[in-house]
Amino acid sequence: MPTTSHEHDTLLARRQRALSPSYRLFYEEPIHAIRGEGVWIYDAEGRRYLDAYNNVPVVGHCHPHVVEQMVRQASVLNTHTRYLTDKPIELAERLLGTMPPELGSVIFTNSGSEANDLAVRISRLVTGNSGIIVTDCAYHGTTDLLSGLSPVTGLPTGPGVFTVSLPLKMTDAAEFRVLVRGALDNMHEAGIKPAALLVDTIFGSDGAVSDPAGFLKDAVDDVRREGGLFIADEVQPGFGRTGAGMWGFARHGVVPDIVTMGKPMGNGYPVASAVLRRELADAFGRHQRYFNTFGGSTVGCVVALAVLDVIQNESLIAHAAETGAYLKDGLQNLCDRHDVFTDLRGTGLFLGVQTPSGDIAARIVNALRRAGVLIGAAGRGNAALKIRPPLPISRSDADYLIGTIEDVLRKDIEGA
Amino acid sequence: MPTTSHEHDTLLARRQRALSPSYRLFYEEPIHAIRGEGVWIYDAEGRRYLDAYNNVPVVGHCHPHVVEQMVRQASVLNTHTRYLTDKPIELAERLLGTMPPELGSVIFTNSGSEANDLAVRISRLVTGNSGIIVTDCAYHGTTDLLSGLSPVTGLPTGPGVFTVSLPLKMTDAAEFRVLVRGALDNMHEAGIKPAALLVDTIFGSDGAVSDPAGFLKDAVDDVRREGGLFIADEVQPGFGRTGAGMWGFARHGVVPDIVTMGKPMGNGYPVASAVLRRELADAFGRHQRYFNTFGGSTVGCVVALAVLDVIQNESLIAHAAETGAYLKDGLQNLCDRHDVFTDLRGTGLFLGVQTPSGDIAARIVNALRRAGVLIGAAGRGNAALKIRPPLPISRSDADYLIGTIEDVLRKDIEGA
Repeated sequence: MPTTSHEHDTLLARRQRALSPSYRLFYEEPIHAIRGEGVWIYDAEGRRYLDAYNNVPVVGHCHPHVVEQMVRQASVLNTHTRYLTDKPIELAERLLGTMPPELGSVIFTNSGSEANDLAVRISRLVTGNSGIIVTDCAYHGTTDLLSGLSPVTGLPTGPGVFTVSLPLKMTDAAEFRVLVRGALDNMHEAGIKPAALLVDTIFGSDGAVSDPAGFLKDAVDDVRREGGLFIADEVQPGFGRTGAGMWGFARHGVVPDIVTMGKPMGNGYPVASAVLRRELADAFGRHQRYFNTFGGSTVGCVVALAVLDVIQNESLIAHAAETGAYLKDGLQNLCDRHDVFTDLRGTGLFLGVQTPSGDIAARIVNALRRAGVLIGAAGRGNAALKIRPPLPISRSDADYLIGTIEDVLRKDIEGA
Repeated sequence: MPTTSHEHDTLLARRQRALSPSYRLFYEEPIHAIRGEGVWIYDAEGRRYLDAYNNVPVVGHCHPHVVEQMVRQASVLNTHTRYLTDKPIELAERLLGTMPPELGSVIFTNSGSEANDLAVRISRLVTGNSGIIVTDCAYHGTTDLLSGLSPVTGLPTGPGVFTVSLPLKMTDAAEFRVLVRGALDNMHEAGIKPAALLVDTIFGSDGAVSDPAGFLKDAVDDVRREGGLFIADEVQPGFGRTGAGMWGFARHGVVPDIVTMGKPMGNGYPVASAVLRRELADAFGRHQRYFNTFGGSTVGCVVALAVLDVIQNESLIAHAAETGAYLKDGLQNLCDRHDVFTDLRGTGLFLGVQTPSGDIAARIVNALRRAGVLIGAAGRGNAALKIRPPLPISRSDADYLIGTIEDVLRKDIEGA
C-alpha cells in the first residue's frame, strides 16, 4: 500500500519528536525503506532503488543463507564467551585463516567502533607510547576516544593525535612516507612517541584513496622503527570489497599489528572484531581482562560464519574484482566525457568519483536518488561521490548505474 | 551426543590458541553450553543447569516470540537510521512511554558500553564540566573512556573521575548524600566541576546495594545544584528486573537526565540506547551529529519491541516482584541459619548474598555449578553471591535454587 505524503510527513514528525536531533536522514527527500533484497531497496510507495551505497549488507540485503543460519542458532542458544561454546572458536579460526600467520589472536566486539577503541587502547598500553597518527579526513568511530581520532566529523582531535593531509592522487608511494615522517617529527617536537599509525586501508572517508598500491609500506616501517604499531582499520575495505583479497592491507604488501573489522561482518547483525599479533594479545592479556557481553555471542558468530560462507560460495572477491573493474571502466568513460567528474579513484567495489565541490556532489547524489539509484558523498568537503554497493551487484546493475549517472549529469547537472 | 573429556580438552585448546588471553571462562570446570531454553542451559553432556545468573536473556533463553520477530524482520529489511523506517521510531516511542515525561529523546547504540560512553561524553559537552562521580566498585563498560570509570576492573580511574566508597548496608538515605558531598568537595579542591554522577541504580558490581530505596535522591539534587547531571545506568536493573517498574531509578524517586540501557534490551541481540532529557538532546544535536551504523537498525529495533511485548504480555515485572520476594524470603531463611551468609541485599530478581570472602564465594559458586545451578560473584573482593536469573524463573525453580544452595552449604562449605 503506497504511503501518502501525509503518512510520510507524520512519520517524519514522529521521528523528530522521539529521536535525538543528532540524527540525520540521507537525501533532500528521505527514503521510507520497507524492504531490501540483493542490491535493491524498496520504499513504501513500491518504488525500487539500486543500492550502490551500503557496504553493511555485503552479500546482499536479507541474504537467505545468512537469515537461515541466524534463525537456526537464535532458536537454540545465544550466549556469551564465558561459557565454552564452539562458534566463537570456529569463527576465530576462520578469520585467522584469511590472514597472514603473524596475526594469531582474536577479540570480538559489537561494532567497528568498539574494535578501534580497543585497538588504540591496546596500542598505547603495549607500546607505552601515546601518539596516534590518522589522516585529516579520517573516520574511525563513535566512542569518546575515537571522536578524537575522526577529524572528518569536525570534532577536535584528542590528546596525542597527529594528522597527515593525504593527497587524493599520489604518483609515488614515497609521498605518503614523507607525510607520516612529518607527523613523527611533529610528535618528537611535542615530546611524544608513536603508539600507532591507524588508517582505513581504502581511505573511504578521505574519498577512496587506493593508489599506488603499496604506498603504506614504507610509512608503516618508519612508525615501527620508532616503536609504534600499525592498526589496519578494515571496517570499510574488509570482507573482499577491494577485490584484491579479503583485506585491504593485502594490496599494500604489509602485515598489520592489529586488524579491526566491523560493518559487513554480520551483513547487518552487529558483530565486529580486533585481530592481533599473538605477542600483542599476550602482552594485553597479561595486564587486563576484556569481556564484551555481546561480543562473540553465539548468534553473532554463526551469522559471521554464514557471511564468510557466502563470500566463498558465491566467489564474491573475484566478483568484486571483475565487476569493480567493469564499473570503474564505465565511470572512467564518464570522466573522459564529463568535466564535472575530475578524478576517479578506488578499487574493487569501493570507488570514488571526484567532483569540483560538495554542492555539486550533493546535487548529483540527490538527483540519482530521484532517478532510483543510491550513492553517497565523502572526502574533503564531501566533494567525492562514494560508490560502494553490496558485492553481488551484477554487470547489468552496473550498466544501469552508469546509465543513470550519465542521464543525471546531462539533465540535472549540465543541463541545469 | 555427549562430549568426551578429550573433545572438551581439544575445544579448550583451540579456544586458547585462537582467542586472546584476555578472555576468561566461568567456573573451575567450564560449561560447554549447547542449548538454552527458558531458565535452563544445557551442556554437551546433556546435563541441564538452572540459569540464575544471566540477565541478558531477560525473557528467557531463545524466547519463541523474540526469535520469530527477529526472523520475520531479518527476511524483509535490516537497514540503518539514515533511511526513514518505522521501527526505530516505534521503539523510541515505546521506550519513552515507560519513562517520566522529562525524558524525551532517544539515541540507539549497540551496547551498554556505547550508551554509557556517549552519555558521559554528552554530560561533559553540555555542562562544560569534566568531573564524573562513580562508586569505587563500579563497572560501566569496555571502552577506553569507561575503563577509567570502572574501578572494579582494577584499572586506574580516568582524568576527572572521583569515586565514593559505597557502604553495603545503609540505615539512612543521608549516608549516600554525605559520600557524594565528599566527592564534590574533592572535586572542588582539584579545581574541577561536576559533569555527572553516574551510577548503576541497583549497584550490581558493588554487590547489589538496593536499600533504603530513595537513597540516591538527595545526592542527585546536590550534584545538580553544582551544574552536574545524573546518569542512571540501567544496563543491570532495567527492563523490570527490580520488580518495582521498568527502571531501577523509579525506586529512588528521582528522574535522571540521561538513562542508559543495554544487556537485556534485545534478549541477546546487541541493541542498546541512551535516553535523554529533550533539552540535553537538543544541546548535543546542535553541536554534534551522531551516527551509529547498527544502532537503531531495523532488526535490532524489532527484537527490542518483541522483548517489551513479552515483558508486558507475561506480566514479568509483577512476576519479578513476586518471585523475587519469594526467593529473597528463602535466601533470608538460609542467612538466618547459615553463618557463611552474612547479609542479604537486592530487590526483585537481582539479589546479593554477602559471604565473608571472595574465596568462600568462589567455592560456593563452583560447588553450585557442579550441583547444576549457575550463579556468579560480585562486589568488593567478589565476596557477594550474585543471583540474577532470567525473569520467567518460577517458584519451583526458586525452590530448587534455594534447596541446592542449602545442600551445597552443608556438603561443600560447612562440611568441608
